[in-house]
Amino acid sequence: MQTVLSGVQPSGSLHLGNLVGAIENYVKLQNEFKTYYMIADWHSLTSRFDSTDSIIPAIYEVAATFLAVGLDPEKSALFAQSQIKEHAELHLLLSMITPLSWVERVPTYKEKLQNSEADLGSYGFLGYPILQAADILIYKAHKVPVGEDQMFHLELTREIGRRFNFLYKKEVFPDPQAVLTQAHRVPGLDGRKMSKTYDNGIYLRDTPDQILHKCTRQMASDTARARRTDPGSPGACTAFTFHKLFSAGETVDEIAQECPKAGIGCFDCKKRLAEKLIERLEPLRTHIEDHLKNTSNLEAILKNGADSARAVAVSTMAEVRETMKTPQFF
Amino acid sequence: MQTVLSGVQPSGSLHLGNLVGAIENYVKLQNEFKTYYMIADWHSLTSRFDSTDSIIPAIYEVAATFLAVGLDPEKSALFAQSQIKEHAELHLLLSMITPLSWVERVPTYKEKLQNSEADLGSYGFLGYPILQAADILIYKAHKVPVGEDQMFHLELTREIGRRFNFLYKKEVFPDPQAVLTQAHRVPGLDGRKMSKTYDNGIYLRDTPDQILHKCTRQMASDTARARRTDPGSPGACTAFTFHKLFSAGETVDEIAQECPKAGIGCFDCKKRLAEKLIERLEPLRTHIEDHLKNTSNLEAILKNGADSARAVAVSTMAEVRETMKTPQFF
Repeated sequence: MQTVLSGVQPSGSLHLGNLVGAIENYVKLQNEFKTYYMIADWHSLTSRFDSTDSIIPAIYEVAATFLAVGLDPEKSALFAQSQIKEHAELHLLLSMITPLSWVERVPTYKEKLQNSEADLGSYGFLGYPILQAADILIYKAHKVPVGEDQMFHLELTREIGRRFNFLYKKEVFPDPQAVLTQAHRVPGLDGRKMSKTYDNGIYLRDTPDQILHKCTRQMASDTARARRTDPGSPGACTAFTFHKLFSAGETVDEIAQECPKAGIGCFDCKKRLAEKLIERLEPLRTHIEDHLKNTSNLEAILKNGADSARAVAVSTMAEVRETMKTPQFF
Repeated sequence: MQTVLSGVQPSGSLHLGNLVGAIENYVKLQNEFKTYYMIADWHSLTSRFDSTDSIIPAIYEVAATFLAVGLDPEKSALFAQSQIKEHAELHLLLSMITPLSWVERVPTYKEKLQNSEADLGSYGFLGYPILQAADILIYKAHKVPVGEDQMFHLELTREIGRRFNFLYKKEVFPDPQAVLTQAHRVPGLDGRKMSKTYDNGIYLRDTPDQILHKCTRQMASDTARARRTDPGSPGACTAFTFHKLFSAGETVDEIAQECPKAGIGCFDCKKRLAEKLIERLEPLRTHIEDHLKNTSNLEAILKNGADSARAVAVSTMAEVRETMKTPQFF
């Protein structure tokens, strides 16, 4: 059975975009692959080293969400990265063989450095892709579910793995392949990409009232439609994009027909969307909240996940050390 | 009792300069301090990642040499860095809080990059001072015996430790202070600094014949003295510098007097030096060779050293994680 690894940062406030774009896909993969899901708390330090209060609650939230979506702890190893010291060891060893120029040329690096409000000027942020390579290679993952913006990082992981195999003359690491997620990208309330950074999300822990409020009061629609009686353009309306993603085909057809002749108003249209989203999200929210009430159960699941991930990581590191001829006396 | 940490790279072929400039001093410190001596095998990967065959034999050689010089395993923890995973973990965490500019501005960095024949273009080589900071801070070392060329690195360690204490609002790490070694710098056979890189050393495993050959045939002397009957200038003679370091005061006085009036020839002068060095080094060499014959004993000593170092490292890391509010569930 092939191995899949993916990671989610414990950044707090997972949203509909994370659910549809990633987590639901990850959970499906557990039936086909040996799956490792890492809550990447060390990665989250690259941008949030100066506000660490939220790390532990955010780890719980990610774990609760995966479980609520259907992750089966018997099938998938769900664990916090920082619990597997071997990731840090492999990161250090790979640091020694990775040319500085490889990480400096990562396209997202300079872009993030310039555009983020966080302080990303650390040595560790530059080395982020090497830590990511260690995360993937330590499980000898064959498949990595990634978004398109992560393709370069994965290519770098492949290059680092190949360089290791070449330098130490042994095929220790297989080439990990991308599993491109087919899910559609969910827009935010303002029409940009849904993102915690923009604070334009519908969060998985939003109550029905909050969802209704966000849909009817905050979600962008066709700005040219100023009055109820004006005809609207569904193609220029964020709410319509949501309908296409989350409503039944007949609802979408009906709105596509009625909106351009002012047969339905924006408020009603968005209210129907809110109902649909609440129908989908409310059971999930209840499950998440239930899991969050039982943190000792979450910790037990994370501990089991860490134990089974660690067994693989320890075995890979023994092979790495033997191949590199570094000691493992004790 | 205050704590001392120092490290030696397992680069193979320790020489007289290492002995007099460092190892003898380290060993003396075990009577005054709680001493941790780390064989820095991860550091050695920064410049030798592509030739790792020699790492394990070189670790044995360093251990055998420390023991031959008088390190008492009951007093000092002697261990290989790579056996303490916590160094890699702390290195990773400190990477997240260390500005890239701090490591880029290390004066020795660009200098080494330009002057070394080794491939030093890795991400890991740039991060060398952060790994060094982790090595020192994890033992909360108060004193670090360093040469003058290491003062900037130690200052960087202090800055990183202070930044951690400031960011996470707790005085976890004390400021480590330099113990400047008083030892004189030993020149190489060619008069430059004795260094494995220049291959101008008298190595601790050289036989008496090799030492005699190196002193009488290879060591630089006053080049202006072409014939036995020419007067010499001790001040311009590497052999005389060696005499000052290793011969008795009366021998030094005698040569200082005789050489300028051609009362002693270079060969005889160097032969006397060789005898002095052999007298000092041969018992040491025998001890080193004896220790090297018993690698299982060396491994046991390194294992004990690692166990006692690890106990401290584990405890510091628990405090670090608690202070940073990163998880330590399991």
